[in-house]
Amino acid sequence: MSHYKKVIQDYISNHKDKTVDLLKQLVMENSVSGNESKAQAIVLEKLRELDLDLDVWEPDLKEMKEHPYFISTRDSFTGSPNIVATLKGTSGGKSMILNGHIDVVPEGNIQQWTYAPYSATVVDNKLYGRGATDMKGGNVALILAIEAIKRSGITLKGNVYFQSVIEEESGGAGTLATILRGYSADGVIIPEPTNMKFFIKQQGSMWFRLKVKGKVAHGGTRYEGVSAIEKSVLIIQQIQKLEQLRNERIADPLYDGVPIPIPINIGTIHGGTWPSSVSDLVTLEGRFGVAPNERLEDAKIEFENWIDNIKNLDDWFVENPVEVEWFGARWVPGTVEADSELVQTLQQNYLETMKQNPVVEAAPWGTDGGLFTQILNIPMIVFGPGETKVAHYPDEFIDLDQMFLAAEIIACTLIDWCGVEGQQHEGEGAYENEKVL
Amino acid sequence: MSHYKKVIQDYISNHKDKTVDLLKQLVMENSVSGNESKAQAIVLEKLRELDLDLDVWEPDLKEMKEHPYFISTRDSFTGSPNIVATLKGTSGGKSMILNGHIDVVPEGNIQQWTYAPYSATVVDNKLYGRGATDMKGGNVALILAIEAIKRSGITLKGNVYFQSVIEEESGGAGTLATILRGYSADGVIIPEPTNMKFFIKQQGSMWFRLKVKGKVAHGGTRYEGVSAIEKSVLIIQQIQKLEQLRNERIADPLYDGVPIPIPINIGTIHGGTWPSSVSDLVTLEGRFGVAPNERLEDAKIEFENWIDNIKNLDDWFVENPVEVEWFGARWVPGTVEADSELVQTLQQNYLETMKQNPVVEAAPWGTDGGLFTQILNIPMIVFGPGETKVAHYPDEFIDLDQMFLAAEIIACTLIDWCGVEGQQHEGEGAYENEKVL
Repeated sequence: MSHYKKVIQDYISNHKDKTVDLLKQLVMENSVSGNESKAQAIVLEKLRELDLDLDVWEPDLKEMKEHPYFISTRDSFTGSPNIVATLKGTSGGKSMILNGHIDVVPEGNIQQWTYAPYSATVVDNKLYGRGATDMKGGNVALILAIEAIKRSGITLKGNVYFQSVIEEESGGAGTLATILRGYSADGVIIPEPTNMKFFIKQQGSMWFRLKVKGKVAHGGTRYEGVSAIEKSVLIIQQIQKLEQLRNERIADPLYDGVPIPIPINIGTIHGGTWPSSVSDLVTLEGRFGVAPNERLEDAKIEFENWIDNIKNLDDWFVENPVEVEWFGARWVPGTVEADSELVQTLQQNYLETMKQNPVVEAAPWGTDGGLFTQILNIPMIVFGPGETKVAHYPDEFIDLDQMFLAAEIIACTLIDWCGVEGQQHEGEGAYENEKVL
Repeated sequence: MSHYKKVIQDYISNHKDKTVDLLKQLVMENSVSGNESKAQAIVLEKLRELDLDLDVWEPDLKEMKEHPYFISTRDSFTGSPNIVATLKGTSGGKSMILNGHIDVVPEGNIQQWTYAPYSATVVDNKLYGRGATDMKGGNVALILAIEAIKRSGITLKGNVYFQSVIEEESGGAGTLATILRGYSADGVIIPEPTNMKFFIKQQGSMWFRLKVKGKVAHGGTRYEGVSAIEKSVLIIQQIQKLEQLRNERIADPLYDGVPIPIPINIGTIHGGTWPSSVSDLVTLEGRFGVAPNERLEDAKIEFENWIDNIKNLDDWFVENPVEVEWFGARWVPGTVEADSELVQTLQQNYLETMKQNPVVEAAPWGTDGGLFTQILNIPMIVFGPGETKVAHYPDEFIDLDQMFLAAEIIACTLIDWCGVEGQQHEGEGAYENEKVL
């Protein structure tokens, strides 16, 4: 075990309670889109204590609108600050972006929660609450990694940029804003909840809205109208067929065992105004999964054509085509090579901490990571504590031990990636040898 | 042509403009459930001019709740008065209830209206607006019929009760209140928009609400959840099968040519909270048609069992049964014999006015009429101006000529049914002969 690893381990081991307190504070602030400022204030206070260079700004929606990857349902980001904190390196090392989003999805039906979603209750070393795993636990792991390096007196050569961004859950406007502000680096780690797996490919996704038309009539003579609800059944079935077709094309062994690599999820349905009237409009909203190697534009065209083709199955749609709108959120797909230096460095540190190799998979969901690979063309990996499957669910939780392990692996990766000031170049060989257990 | 018919025709012919003004005033008042008082005030003013005995009251919800046929979504009828106006007969004649509802359904999507729904625009002798045909046009025909009799100096023997009731569109609490207040008669005419057909049987109906459950998951791993939207597709299909089964059983020749005699209309669907989450709840609301000779209770049981049976098609429903709730509105089915005196009297007057026999059909929708036949066991017929198919639609309208013809037929029917004071018994024979053209 390297000297540095031991130092980092000790630091983390001695600061668990304070770290859990930070996570509790963050989870107790409901930071859904538009409501991020209080959670960001907590982050900021912590970053100030660490004496990092801080850049806090509200993204300018007007400026951002010009970018082809910009998407948001919002009219303004006033009151929703982005934060980038820089741990300055001395020079000569590779730089790293550590990116995590502060926004959470709504808690849903509160009655399905065992513990109140913003209570941050800890039971059996698990902290429960909306955002615990997606992804405030990951963010806290990042902060702890930087804290451990800084407080242990380790000086890195390359810069580390910690980014606490808004709007990931709605399409990535926060991360896009960091890129447009000029932030870049030699690598990116995003600790979304992979349950400590390495997600080296990630699905993109886009939100769609479909308007299915009908013709109003009194329910007692419903045959004089056309039910938009019945027509929606055809649309749902058509979408199910497309999902099957698109997933049959996925040959990447990384997706072996994944039932639906790139799902099309219809998340909401709303139609009709009166029980005894035939409804003339149903609106469906959903998430369209995009393969890691697929262009968003191609995926859109396939979906639109498929929906349009329903007119060949039902004449109604000839005169009354379904309206397709892409709205709200969009995540760019992304990939990184398994043999890239970023993946290899993280893997080496994973092995040292976990005494086994990581599971490498393709992500079943998009993150802001695609923006880094598509716009900046820099390697990016998604790796973090917490189980994917509790994200967006009631009783979302994070395993606190996993959070500490992730912090350790990321801190040691930063040390290797960015390099340590004061260490002789010749000494590096010894250090490298030392690292092998 | 009888002396009286000529008198009535002349009166109506000379009072068309004033009558259309009354209808305009009524249509311009949006009298959806809970908002009936201004429209009732207009009715009341007119009835006062005619010097009828007036009974105006807000139904007592607490008292009414005891009645098995009571149904309403409301907490109170404060501000929603019922009106019964009595044209007192001298004695010795049969009495008649003329019943019409003042409430309307909401206007729906205002952009689908050519003329604003409360503008009461008249084009080509049609008056457009929400409630024009369902059923303010019918109500005005009733008022005009009474007015023509009264102003022409004709004194009836039997009482005529004009009822302007609330809550028909939500299940008949207004008409039920008149019955509980003690109103009854030897016959009932309800001028709902039959397009001048005789509806001697009428479908009952009930509103249902179904809650279809799913299991939440992130849309990117939607296979870890269960989509309540996909499960709702099965429920919709199951309901379509039941509708087919129930309608195959309808053998009554009155329903020949009606595509779906007793429809099951799913009018609203709402589910899901987020495009990229799997929805765990979908709520469906609709209208369940009940055959004229069917008991509401039997129909309910059939529906509930059918929905429950879906567990045999999909295991999900074993542990997650669909919740069935009956709510909001219910119309009792009703029938009257084609050879009853009420139908025959109306038919004779129809023939005299229209020079042809009426079309006799079964109603594709319920009215408050079922309450009269089921609770009071008195003959009731639905006959009125206006096309059924524009009720509850955008661009609802009434043909004003039809409204005047209906008023004439109903006025003459009242003269025959209630009898005229001062006419010699011997003279009646002459009068009867005179009627035959």
